[in-house]
Amino acid sequence: MELLKQKILDEGKTVGSDVVKVDMFLNHQIDVDLLCEIGKEFRRIFDSEKINKILTIEASGIGIACIAAQYFSVPVVFAKKGANRNVGDNIYKADVYSFTKGVTTTIGISKDYIGKDDHILIIDDFMANGKAVHGLINIINQAGATVEGIGIVIEKGFQSGGDSLRSMGYRVESLAVIKSIDDGKVVFG
Amino acid sequence: MELLKQKILDEGKTVGSDVVKVDMFLNHQIDVDLLCEIGKEFRRIFDSEKINKILTIEASGIGIACIAAQYFSVPVVFAKKGANRNVGDNIYKADVYSFTKGVTTTIGISKDYIGKDDHILIIDDFMANGKAVHGLINIINQAGATVEGIGIVIEKGFQSGGDSLRSMGYRVESLAVIKSIDDGKVVFG
Repeated sequence: MELLKQKILDEGKTVGSDVVKVDMFLNHQIDVDLLCEIGKEFRRIFDSEKINKILTIEASGIGIACIAAQYFSVPVVFAKKGANRNVGDNIYKADVYSFTKGVTTTIGISKDYIGKDDHILIIDDFMANGKAVHGLINIINQAGATVEGIGIVIEKGFQSGGDSLRSMGYRVESLAVIKSIDDGKVVFG
Repeated sequence: MELLKQKILDEGKTVGSDVVKVDMFLNHQIDVDLLCEIGKEFRRIFDSEKINKILTIEASGIGIACIAAQYFSVPVVFAKKGANRNVGDNIYKADVYSFTKGVTTTIGISKDYIGKDDHILIIDDFMANGKAVHGLINIINQAGATVEGIGIVIEKGFQSGGDSLRSMGYRVESLAVIKSIDDGKVVFG
């Protein structure tokens, strides 16, 4: 998606050879006009799939998933991190290791909001090692639901997440794949 | 907002005399069609205000804020909870006590994304004691920005948050105000 790639080049800030910060438009401050274009693009890409629900994970996936969901006319369900008495214990859980934070978090989705009849599009902002998506797939499998596709805004192509999921047979579509960060410059794959 | 009130009556689940769970359509599973109507209603209510940014707090405020922001044509900034090395220390911080979780969380917003020229609409899903909104106002004050209004989807009118903010002169607009929960039934104010 050229608009997104140009935005990353124009505004993203690289840190070393493996981090690109996009919190000026994607995951802290959010450019909602860009999100609408991202949502339409996901709809175009996954148009042929039978999708009745979009799944994401808090926090930065939620805005992207909600905006995209408008174009699919389906609800969003987001996995919550940690325990919360308002969720109850009627939940599917999975552990997710975050390389960013260096901790393992338990994510959960209420059994009321995912079931065997669901055909799910997973959406998230970033994919590096793919641990968050694997956690969501774990929950989808527990629920007996079907993964119809995985839509990622920015994939770090030099980390293993995307390819490991593709090799498992999942349809992973990333709107921008970063091949490398060379001398502070983002190179797309 | 009648559509919202009817949704709360039809689908919300009360727990005791002070909790109504709406995680089937607002803060775990999200009815995006309803969110669009909520976003339009906030736009209608705050139409005369000069707003250039919507501020919210992770996680459940993000979807509402992003959908609403489309109708204002402004970006969203969401306060992050806890520390995260990707945010850096160039941030405004405030402590927020959560009665739901029984813990104090430090929320933060990068100094890059809020400043003295900003005219801000705060949006959140729920208001009870108003601690989250007070935390956001604290940060807005640190940044020298202006609070133009506070838009809440569901206010617990029997708790003090809304009235304490109104008595401080803030414009608080809640789309549904719950006056009480009597014998498991929600009564609106």
